[in-house]
Amino acid sequence: MPKSVLTPQAEDYPRWYQEVVAKAEMAENGPVRGTMVVRPYGYAIWERMQAELDARIKAAGARNAYFPLFIPESYLKREAEHVEGFSPELAVVTHGGGKELEEPIVVRPTSETVINAYFSKWLQSYRELPLLLNQWCNVVRWELRPRLFLRTTEFLWQEGHTCHATSEDARACCLHILHDVYESFMVEQLAVPVLTGRKTDAEKFAGADASYTCEGMMGDGKALQMGTSHLLGQNFARVFDTMFLNEEGEREYAWQTSWGVSTRLVGALIMAHGDDSGLRVPPNIAPVQVVVLAVRDEGGAGEAAASVARQLADRGVRVELDSRTDTSFGRRVIDWELKGVPLRVEVGPRDVAAGEATLARRDDGTKQSVPLAALVERAQSLLADIQSGLLDEARRRLDSRLVDVSSVEEAIEASQSGFARMEWDDADEAALNAAGVSVRCLVRADGTVPDPEERSELRAVVGRAY
Amino acid sequence: MPKSVLTPQAEDYPRWYQEVVAKAEMAENGPVRGTMVVRPYGYAIWERMQAELDARIKAAGARNAYFPLFIPESYLKREAEHVEGFSPELAVVTHGGGKELEEPIVVRPTSETVINAYFSKWLQSYRELPLLLNQWCNVVRWELRPRLFLRTTEFLWQEGHTCHATSEDARACCLHILHDVYESFMVEQLAVPVLTGRKTDAEKFAGADASYTCEGMMGDGKALQMGTSHLLGQNFARVFDTMFLNEEGEREYAWQTSWGVSTRLVGALIMAHGDDSGLRVPPNIAPVQVVVLAVRDEGGAGEAAASVARQLADRGVRVELDSRTDTSFGRRVIDWELKGVPLRVEVGPRDVAAGEATLARRDDGTKQSVPLAALVERAQSLLADIQSGLLDEARRRLDSRLVDVSSVEEAIEASQSGFARMEWDDADEAALNAAGVSVRCLVRADGTVPDPEERSELRAVVGRAY
Repeated sequence: MPKSVLTPQAEDYPRWYQEVVAKAEMAENGPVRGTMVVRPYGYAIWERMQAELDARIKAAGARNAYFPLFIPESYLKREAEHVEGFSPELAVVTHGGGKELEEPIVVRPTSETVINAYFSKWLQSYRELPLLLNQWCNVVRWELRPRLFLRTTEFLWQEGHTCHATSEDARACCLHILHDVYESFMVEQLAVPVLTGRKTDAEKFAGADASYTCEGMMGDGKALQMGTSHLLGQNFARVFDTMFLNEEGEREYAWQTSWGVSTRLVGALIMAHGDDSGLRVPPNIAPVQVVVLAVRDEGGAGEAAASVARQLADRGVRVELDSRTDTSFGRRVIDWELKGVPLRVEVGPRDVAAGEATLARRDDGTKQSVPLAALVERAQSLLADIQSGLLDEARRRLDSRLVDVSSVEEAIEASQSGFARMEWDDADEAALNAAGVSVRCLVRADGTVPDPEERSELRAVVGRAY
Repeated sequence: MPKSVLTPQAEDYPRWYQEVVAKAEMAENGPVRGTMVVRPYGYAIWERMQAELDARIKAAGARNAYFPLFIPESYLKREAEHVEGFSPELAVVTHGGGKELEEPIVVRPTSETVINAYFSKWLQSYRELPLLLNQWCNVVRWELRPRLFLRTTEFLWQEGHTCHATSEDARACCLHILHDVYESFMVEQLAVPVLTGRKTDAEKFAGADASYTCEGMMGDGKALQMGTSHLLGQNFARVFDTMFLNEEGEREYAWQTSWGVSTRLVGALIMAHGDDSGLRVPPNIAPVQVVVLAVRDEGGAGEAAASVARQLADRGVRVELDSRTDTSFGRRVIDWELKGVPLRVEVGPRDVAAGEATLARRDDGTKQSVPLAALVERAQSLLADIQSGLLDEARRRLDSRLVDVSSVEEAIEASQSGFARMEWDDADEAALNAAGVSVRCLVRADGTVPDPEERSELRAVVGRAY
């Protein structure tokens, strides 16, 4: 095996992350502090995430729409908690078309306010409910300690916004998105198991009654909030007059939810599966599932590699042919390992002579010789193995590093390598926070998600967080 | 036929446009002047355009990426023509994270500057050329006379940016995008024939050597610039130091192109095909190709309508079932006509009894009874007819309203109902502009597109423009 080109994770995890993002050509810093340039390989992963999520969001009954980037500052101010939460993070446009503006404009940090202004115009009757909209867009939240994909001043995301006739229907929607859209996507596509639970009041969305979250465990044992689904109650409806005529003919405020996941998921993918050689991208989400390398352009290896790539593409595998035989084979292997392509097919002159090719798995580094005639089928079954193998590996990490504790001291100790679970009553948030640890979410004793107002007999999952 | 709910086009075309955008639930004005809310039906059309264009752009060899919304003001200023052209349209962020910024930030009006800053970091050798990137994003250009879809302060678009080793290769790419991506998409998907040609110096992109355009003729005979492809020469490469080592080992500035189409295409679709009853969306781009209406919920009509919808969906037709029999049939027909759904299937109790359904074409309003067993096949062949019929109709309009003239006076006269074509030498731009008419593009005598520096024996296509 060629020597790794990355700082080992065990030596310096943040540095490993920075290096793998750069060397796998995922992203770099933009010229304005905190902004991000997503390079083609990183963007291709995001595009596949978008496609999968979009299908699930549409299956949940939402339709896509687009609301403006620019929001009048006054809109933000209508919901008191909301403006308090977002004010420190706002980018403000004061000049447009060469003139100073009469009212400053805010670049959207999220769109509850502007969308409610339209919900209140459109919504008439309970017959139109539930009303589920989603948008894919960029948002801006000024970031003082930016980190590519994880915390950037501008990021890409989807934000869903819904109106319901009853509180119960809103709750059901909020949890449906949490489990059947987000969690299932994370598990099935990203191969990242997550804990779902409710945020504490200190950590909930500014303006929500309750926030639900999917928390993943990264390779260093820290938590990453990967997606949130908020129960807004009637808070925004009241200030924006989002009302409907109910079945009894009375005007009533709508019950609402909002929910989002962002390019942060790319960071989750990197940190959940990456190793000292680079990314390991799960096959379901990989823009390139198989790379076929011609080892040298001799003995028909170039033609054989091209033929293997064609056969794989014909069977619907996302494949790339690497016939850059003027670059050393070792260097190319390192590059594809950095990029985390799940399966590598190596075709050299000796392989061709033997009617074989070599298959190398990125997840465990094992290699095997396979007769060319059996290669496509073997590749497909290995891709399925790799997908489930990565999930198992991540699940084992989560299981083994999630420990039950009974004091703040133990929780802080356990958080150095993973998560701690404890009685919520014992989880002193201030003391935890002082040690760089936070309550990631609240769960019931059986692990399920508590209702918004449920307070007794809950467990707190505690950890260090990105 | 029910009475139209729109102002007739002949009476007041701009008003018709405004009304159809509102009543077909395509879009409305945003709270900040000039911005736009794209409603789900309008956005669904844009999503289909994106999918079709994205496939063509990728087939042309480009990869998608994402560059930041925020650009340092100083970047814009590096290319003199560029900043002069865009300065009056900029939105400027002066405050971020609660503080005044040291350097004002511009909200991207287009991304040549920021993308070149990265091209110059990434590009090393001629081996990496051509380098073709594309991004889907929002841009902001302050608009004093906004019009939904046609001219909005914020709009959605794709912008392609490429680097080439030679001027010839850049030219070939610029024209490949113009004809094989944009024009072919417009003709085959939107059913809108376009004239392609070069812009005059007065109308070209700020910073380009030459701009090429696709100009469509709208229902009122006015021109709409539907897409542009620019030859940037080495202008941006020089100011951003975008260089590569050529085959001789010498450093050389890259030759570049950029090109874009936007949500303006939705406006083109509306005005190219709409009639006094609403939109007419070509089947290839229609989010709903067939709507199946249960006329009344009697005599098995509801079940029969649902069954027809299922059969169509099974054959890959994009279909919607309208079983809102508590709303009057006439009202529902008007709504679907407003939305321009190409084909309507009406299923009433009498139809069911006769084993038939009624097919109504949106393009020409004709109706026919079809046995249920033959319905899916007939629907599919009618959709193909409607697609080609709309293109023929638009082509006939363009052909009949494009007249050859030999003086500015005649050109102004002809521009009242369409386009005029004349010797470029005779086309006094100042005199034309004074009459509200402009040179839309320059073409050769045989109708083909002139080279960047070609000046003699050209024709000018002249018209009023959106």
